[in-house]
Amino acid sequence: MDELLNAVKFDEKGLVCAIAQDAASGRVLMVAWMNAEALRKTAETGFAHYYSRSRRKQWMKGEESGHTQKVHELRLDCDGDAVVMLISQNGGIACHTGRESCFYRRWNGSAWETADAVLKDEAEIYGHTHP
Amino acid sequence: MDELLNAVKFDEKGLVCAIAQDAASGRVLMVAWMNAEALRKTAETGFAHYYSRSRRKQWMKGEESGHTQKVHELRLDCDGDAVVMLISQNGGIACHTGRESCFYRRWNGSAWETADAVLKDEAEIYGHTHP
Repeated sequence: MDELLNAVKFDEKGLVCAIAQDAASGRVLMVAWMNAEALRKTAETGFAHYYSRSRRKQWMKGEESGHTQKVHELRLDCDGDAVVMLISQNGGIACHTGRESCFYRRWNGSAWETADAVLKDEAEIYGHTHP
Repeated sequence: MDELLNAVKFDEKGLVCAIAQDAASGRVLMVAWMNAEALRKTAETGFAHYYSRSRRKQWMKGEESGHTQKVHELRLDCDGDAVVMLISQNGGIACHTGRESCFYRRWNGSAWETADAVLKDEAEIYGHTHP
């Protein structure tokens, strides 16, 4: 996996920006971070893994919620500091708030308005509210 | 513009991750950074502005290349540290390499292969090679 990692310019914290885009709808579902291990695991398993800066650990998306992300395509940008994954979102929910996408707030010129509905309650997804 | 900026969680460098997505094709074209001023300018003018970490200054995308990005929709994610813009890409080229998207390298399981063609030479875009 040297080929995979050598082309990536991890930042001073050892992280690279990772975007999950729905392969069917094209919608950007979430943005998170990967360390080298998370990127390697993503490429090896075909399921999105990230690195949580707050919890300081690598995790597989959906390991708790079941909302895993099957990766169909992995792309790297010109300067090597961001990847885009085309994924299938299990359950159709990427956001911990129970929405399809984390990008559910839209600027209307004077305020950020909530533009997307909650598809499933947080409590139902996690069995408790998200920390 | 307090409403715009107050919801955003800028990082310790005062930056937020900004994704430009083609409004027509849905393709993710680039990822860059915005400081508060760049975000404000983007919302006010309707054209994407970023902050260059290497040049340490705010810039309007396309100011040199002509490849401006007209913003149709601006969205913020659940934790407020990333925005997605749905844009029209002037000239159909977002990448400084002369490609439609910066994400032109695809992981094929053993190597990053160049998956997209150069549409216009860098020298032609900038009158010189990109620094």
